Amino acid sequence: MPELAKLGHIALETPDLEESVWFFRDVLGLNEVERTDDTVYFRGQVDFEHHSLSLTQAAESGVNHIAYRTESPKDVGQFADHFEANGVDVTWVDSGTEAGQGEAVRFTVPHGHQFEIYYDIEKVETPKETRSRLRNRMHKATSRVTPRHIDHVNILDRDAGETAAWLQDHLGFQLNEYFATPDDEYFRNWLTVATLPHDVAVGTTFVEEEPLERLHHVAYRVENIHHLFEAADELSENDIQIDGGPGQHAMTEGKFLYFRDPASDIRVELYTGGYPVFDPDWEPIRWTEDDAGVAGDHQWIGDTTDKMGRLGLTPYANW
Amino acid sequence: MPELAKLGHIALETPDLEESVWFFRDVLGLNEVERTDDTVYFRGQVDFEHHSLSLTQAAESGVNHIAYRTESPKDVGQFADHFEANGVDVTWVDSGTEAGQGEAVRFTVPHGHQFEIYYDIEKVETPKETRSRLRNRMHKATSRVTPRHIDHVNILDRDAGETAAWLQDHLGFQLNEYFATPDDEYFRNWLTVATLPHDVAVGTTFVEEEPLERLHHVAYRVENIHHLFEAADELSENDIQIDGGPGQHAMTEGKFLYFRDPASDIRVELYTGGYPVFDPDWEPIRWTEDDAGVAGDHQWIGDTTDKMGRLGLTPYANW
Amino acid sequence: MPELAKLGHIALETPDLEESVWFFRDVLGLNEVERTDDTVYFRGQVDFEHHSLSLTQAAESGVNHIAYRTESPKDVGQFADHFEANGVDVTWVDSGTEAGQGEAVRFTVPHGHQFEIYYDIEKVETPKETRSRLRNRMHKATSRVTPRHIDHVNILDRDAGETAAWLQDHLGFQLNEYFATPDDEYFRNWLTVATLPHDVAVGTTFVEEEPLERLHHVAYRVENIHHLFEAADELSENDIQIDGGPGQHAMTEGKFLYFRDPASDIRVELYTGGYPVFDPDWEPIRWTEDDAGVAGDHQWIGDTTDKMGRLGLTPYANW
Amino acid sequence: MPELAKLGHIALETPDLEESVWFFRDVLGLNEVERTDDTVYFRGQVDFEHHSLSLTQAAESGVNHIAYRTESPKDVGQFADHFEANGVDVTWVDSGTEAGQGEAVRFTVPHGHQFEIYYDIEKVETPKETRSRLRNRMHKATSRVTPRHIDHVNILDRDAGETAAWLQDHLGFQLNEYFATPDDEYFRNWLTVATLPHDVAVGTTFVEEEPLERLHHVAYRVENIHHLFEAADELSENDIQIDGGPGQHAMTEGKFLYFRDPASDIRVELYTGGYPVFDPDWEPIRWTEDDAGVAGDHQWIGDTTDKMGRLGLTPYANW
Repeated sequence: MPELAKLGHIALETPDLEESVWFFRDVLGLNEVERTDDTVYFRGQVDFEHHSLSLTQAAESGVNHIAYRTESPKDVGQFADHFEANGVDVTWVDSGTEAGQGEAVRFTVPHGHQFEIYYDIEKVETPKETRSRLRNRMHKATSRVTPRHIDHVNILDRDAGETAAWLQDHLGFQLNEYFATPDDEYFRNWLTVATLPHDVAVGTTFVEEEPLERLHHVAYRVENIHHLFEAADELSENDIQIDGGPGQHAMTEGKFLYFRDPASDIRVELYTGGYPVFDPDWEPIRWTEDDAGVAGDHQWIGDTTDKMGRLGLTPYANW
Repeated sequence: MPELAKLGHIALETPDLEESVWFFRDVLGLNEVERTDDTVYFRGQVDFEHHSLSLTQAAESGVNHIAYRTESPKDVGQFADHFEANGVDVTWVDSGTEAGQGEAVRFTVPHGHQFEIYYDIEKVETPKETRSRLRNRMHKATSRVTPRHIDHVNILDRDAGETAAWLQDHLGFQLNEYFATPDDEYFRNWLTVATLPHDVAVGTTFVEEEPLERLHHVAYRVENIHHLFEAADELSENDIQIDGGPGQHAMTEGKFLYFRDPASDIRVELYTGGYPVFDPDWEPIRWTEDDAGVAGDHQWIGDTTDKMGRLGLTPYANW
Repeated sequence: MPELAKLGHIALETPDLEESVWFFRDVLGLNEVERTDDTVYFRGQVDFEHHSLSLTQAAESGVNHIAYRTESPKDVGQFADHFEANGVDVTWVDSGTEAGQGEAVRFTVPHGHQFEIYYDIEKVETPKETRSRLRNRMHKATSRVTPRHIDHVNILDRDAGETAAWLQDHLGFQLNEYFATPDDEYFRNWLTVATLPHDVAVGTTFVEEEPLERLHHVAYRVENIHHLFEAADELSENDIQIDGGPGQHAMTEGKFLYFRDPASDIRVELYTGGYPVFDPDWEPIRWTEDDAGVAGDHQWIGDTTDKMGRLGLTPYANW
Repeated sequence: MPELAKLGHIALETPDLEESVWFFRDVLGLNEVERTDDTVYFRGQVDFEHHSLSLTQAAESGVNHIAYRTESPKDVGQFADHFEANGVDVTWVDSGTEAGQGEAVRFTVPHGHQFEIYYDIEKVETPKETRSRLRNRMHKATSRVTPRHIDHVNILDRDAGETAAWLQDHLGFQLNEYFATPDDEYFRNWLTVATLPHDVAVGTTFVEEEPLERLHHVAYRVENIHHLFEAADELSENDIQIDGGPGQHAMTEGKFLYFRDPASDIRVELYTGGYPVFDPDWEPIRWTEDDAGVAGDHQWIGDTTDKMGRLGLTPYANW
């Protein structure tokens, strides 16, 4: 069975590339790595490969794909074979289609999110002016926020439990935590291929008018809660609305701040804390309505399934 | 003209003294200094006098008085003379009525808040078991929260501008910041007798059914934002509801966390940050509706006078 | 090839068990899980298995063993077979020899450190009084320090490069960073079986009179730099000497505080920060004398091999 | 008796103005307010007057003067009269000699430090590009360090006790804390005219070859310990040596980081924490050799008078 190693990057589309670049590079402090005709590539301070985010000029905002890296080169083809054997269409992407990246395969997760799997990726040097004196950093801090690395994506669709099961069955994700409704629907799911509390979260949405393949947010890790406050302050000085937080999630125990790229309206989370999952016999943690309002989620409100359903779509999406 | 030196203490009443003691001492970490028949006295780590908070068993929750200390012994009598000359009733309180405290005078601020003025106060030693090895601390940290000292009180009444003017005229408070309505009513006011961004805040409330002399909250200073998160976590582990925050106020620039003593339902704020006011020619900072949603107040919502009016009374009282 | 999943625990020996228990439990805040005749077992807030530290009453201070958990049950026997095939003596330890733990094997790493390998380990419930309301914590915070989980051990011997190579060859460790002398000796080595910047560090010592199998320190992860300061304050209030820090290491980029258990004189580090290693093609980071005094290690002094040699043995062991 | 309100600014001289400007503005993040032929003026984020630091091109590094602001305009002349009546020479400085500042008087404190007293000072607006959206900030954060305001100066001379007494007698300083030798010499003194733990520290030096009027350091306040670490990191990325810290002082209970302007070699401290002194009957805190190594000063070492003497001059000047 092939294996995934990590969340690699997310490819976003924005109607105003320059404003999005300003937001992710100048306000948040991601490092611009490379720029092609219509796409700019970024990484955080300890994203050790070519990029963890790309922004492409497009007619509308959206997610082009979410990319996971495999444990070895041969895993890419093996995943492709596995999907084809299971009736999942795959598309091969040529080397160089994405800057710095080799051959990759793309496919669609149930309910519409497009994922990508790759192994080959450049380890590009940092230009001298932003290089760190520390050999274990890709660049020095260039903002008060200093995003460290891509941490996770949070996606919504019509049946989160089904998608979460699919991710476990076909991609080898481990389910770390979930929230179950009284009918035992897996309403919120936190999964990982690495040792994070999650590198993907999958939640159910009830809202008809929203595209079902919606990205709730992409999250970058910051070092500690202070960076959440520095970010909130920096965003406010730039007249960018805070969407939620600072606060602490009950699930995954992470601390967070939510806001949106003003150009694309795509939501970003800064995330810190949480716990590492090193134990090979991890048993998924089950949360239920009884835990609503529980210790630790200083923002988490809602005590009915109905409220849960709406949470993912309110401006304060406290997950 | 007599002068005030500092906010000294607040005397609260609670229907369940032991639960309130548990909350302020065991959860928050205030130091119990002395206990009489019906009253327990507390102070923070760098409250250098006898106490900054007293809790008295009573039929109902309430504020007995808010006490300010004068610059010199003679100021107490001079304030009493001043009030009598201005038609304000004063009541002399005998030495020892409050543990550790000498003679004091009490009087009522317009709209009903009872204030006290005193100078003589004991500097009681800390028992060995909670004494710090640092000579500039009254006791070592006994919780994760470690309240440092009483910082301010926030009071509400029918006409905050009138009360704020009275505090300036009769007690020598300095107005540091205020929020003015389009009709130039001083709707929110932050004043100090020391060098804090405020040691009293006065706000207007429109709600008929609430007692007009309401205490919105009493605030203790903590060292930094980490203590806000540690407090939120500790409260949550003890099943005590967070009322608002962590966040940052635009006015006074302080960071905050709000919650309530479960026994008395009295609201407490932990507060950190802000700026010192050392300049003798400080000009009050004017905020208006144009600043609503302004940078830095990550919780501050509301763009109409009506919303302003309700803010002080909602569960999330983001001031 | 069998695989290791994580650093599991360290078994320490102390001449004064009760004082060591006071130190690790009451000062640092580790959770006491179980107590047998001569041994007490502890874990951190997110150590999800039975224990990550044991203290045993003994004539002298020392390290009994350092234990790593395997990825699967069968890996334990496979490692035993591998060692026997390679002339390394292994000793089988019966289930229950260590509380909560199944069968294990022990063996000696070159230069004398005793390691243990196990898979079966209980997931013991936390007693109600210290249980957290969060389902992803093993216990609530019981101190200002709140150690989160065992992070790494740092061991010293006569030829660190040789030991580091052995750990890679026989146990599958990945070398993340190393410091090389002008003669290309691998003088300091940071290795992991998980995704940490290191779960074991191996350094060369030149000092004859020290036992070569010396433990430099065992490290617990804390959430952020604030906990380093809270720990320093708590230690100081308890008259326990700070050994080094707070500061930041250049290597592994972690922030640290060093001190010693007053009963056993064993050094403990609190550690936070660092970076995760998710990339399967990680290339070890090489540091040399040119990096001495480099950015980020605010405590790191020394620019000659000789000084390097002494660093690991001075009271301020700034690694 | 005239009164001082606050430490206003320090006027430094540097042999390389542009490099010093780079250091204080671009590395530390002070705000450049005005520039004349040979002098550049700076302030912190909540320094509400024209400047708190000036740098003047000069042949050698040095302190031109340390300036305190009075409580009222007439205090300036009254201090001048007082000094003349007591045989202390005063020099009147014309309005405009220092940018933004009115008439002032200068005089020499025993052992040679030049002080200045002024009242009139402009409140200059911040240019739009660095203006904050918060009305209670002079500028938005322009670095990861964000110095808040000038906090204190630390000066050394041959007999600190004598100077400290002079500052109390002639300028109305309050002695908050002091360290006394076995011979009851006031070896280290922390004094304030405001409510800080100190706005001036005076220490004895024994070293003959050093100029006796030496400035040990000027300190800027930062918001919390995180800013100390951010500063240490920023300095290191710019190859600027850390002089001491991060750590916590026993005296004044402040947290600190020391380093030097590479152009002038003048030492700067970033300082956070400490306690406010609001009580009018403050009794100076006495520290003696018995407190050496005391709780809370994680850097403070030394248990003999001789060591005390050397501390102020070592590279790690842990005061």
